[in-house]
Amino acid sequence: MKHIDSSEILAMEKFYRINLVNSLGGYKSLHLLGTAGEDGITNLCLVSSVFHLGANPPLIGLVMRPQREHNDTLRNIRLTGKYTLNNVLPDWYEQGHQTSAGYPSGVSEFDKCGFKKLYFPGFKAPFVQQSTVRVGLELREVIDMELNATTILIGEVAHILLEEQVVTSDGTINHVEAGTMTVAGLDSYFSPEFVGRLSYAKPGVKPQQLNQQ
Amino acid sequence: MKHIDSSEILAMEKFYRINLVNSLGGYKSLHLLGTAGEDGITNLCLVSSVFHLGANPPLIGLVMRPQREHNDTLRNIRLTGKYTLNNVLPDWYEQGHQTSAGYPSGVSEFDKCGFKKLYFPGFKAPFVQQSTVRVGLELREVIDMELNATTILIGEVAHILLEEQVVTSDGTINHVEAGTMTVAGLDSYFSPEFVGRLSYAKPGVKPQQLNQQ
Repeated sequence: MKHIDSSEILAMEKFYRINLVNSLGGYKSLHLLGTAGEDGITNLCLVSSVFHLGANPPLIGLVMRPQREHNDTLRNIRLTGKYTLNNVLPDWYEQGHQTSAGYPSGVSEFDKCGFKKLYFPGFKAPFVQQSTVRVGLELREVIDMELNATTILIGEVAHILLEEQVVTSDGTINHVEAGTMTVAGLDSYFSPEFVGRLSYAKPGVKPQQLNQQ
Repeated sequence: MKHIDSSEILAMEKFYRINLVNSLGGYKSLHLLGTAGEDGITNLCLVSSVFHLGANPPLIGLVMRPQREHNDTLRNIRLTGKYTLNNVLPDWYEQGHQTSAGYPSGVSEFDKCGFKKLYFPGFKAPFVQQSTVRVGLELREVIDMELNATTILIGEVAHILLEEQVVTSDGTINHVEAGTMTVAGLDSYFSPEFVGRLSYAKPGVKPQQLNQQ
């Protein structure tokens, strides 16, 4: 067994540390984050830091890296309060990856990387047409982290746009059917295979396999 | 295409809403969270809300549900400032799921669910012996969310304990080799299959496949 302590982590070569720490937590949620500025210019970027905060009200959190000049996404969200999260599929995940390139401010990754915009009436931020599970969020809270200058955004689900067949009878989304991918570390992409679905856990009762995803 | 708006979400039957909103974001990081109280009594629970906050310093966030009487985990973390995250493997994920049962305060899920404790000298919180990637964290920040009474914990990586062969030459952890699972929604478990690893994205350059996980 290998042991690595905090002083060794801090002394690591920069990219080794980035790769190690980014991949420590295992598989991460993977989304294309869509926004538009007040001028209507759109922006699309890949994020892997989405987390579930609660179901009632329906809240989703995500981390944005420290603001940089060409980072239109955070500025758009602060200005408009609207953004979308769209799942990533195997047929075009390379195009999704390409949205993480450092395009200049004002250039839309929708156009540069081959994504079609989908708008819902009255909602300013664009969804990704090619996705199968799309969530439109309204900004509820911004947490500026003094620890490392990142920003945690908390949004409330305003719209869900998805393919009919991906929602199962109890509300759970079947992400195998939806084709949703996941990511580990910075750049390794995966398609999960279903292993099992388990009954609600109770003390002293062995969990049962449920016969559905 | 199906559209669901926020008023429909809020009007849903409770468990349908919980299933839908929990599964909206796709695959989530899956961990067993280990703690110990001042009295040394241990606690273990399943969490699916871990997110990467930053690599320098190495920071990991996670969401804890609203405090309840029998929830020893959050109390232990607030008291000791130490906790561990341990990956979940297919051979024993049903035991992992069972830690989410409502055992009374003072009862250790390590013992009830068949997990072996692994201690690192000087670090109070127990790791899970059966895991292959284990992270010991020191609490850095507690964010109490007024929006829904959850708590976001930010911890700094103090120790990493993992199997030697799961770390690749550039620092990235190979989670297929490690056997790490992922979860969608409340209770659906998956084992990801590698699809591809892509080169650092640059404007105007097509991402290349890297020949490694």
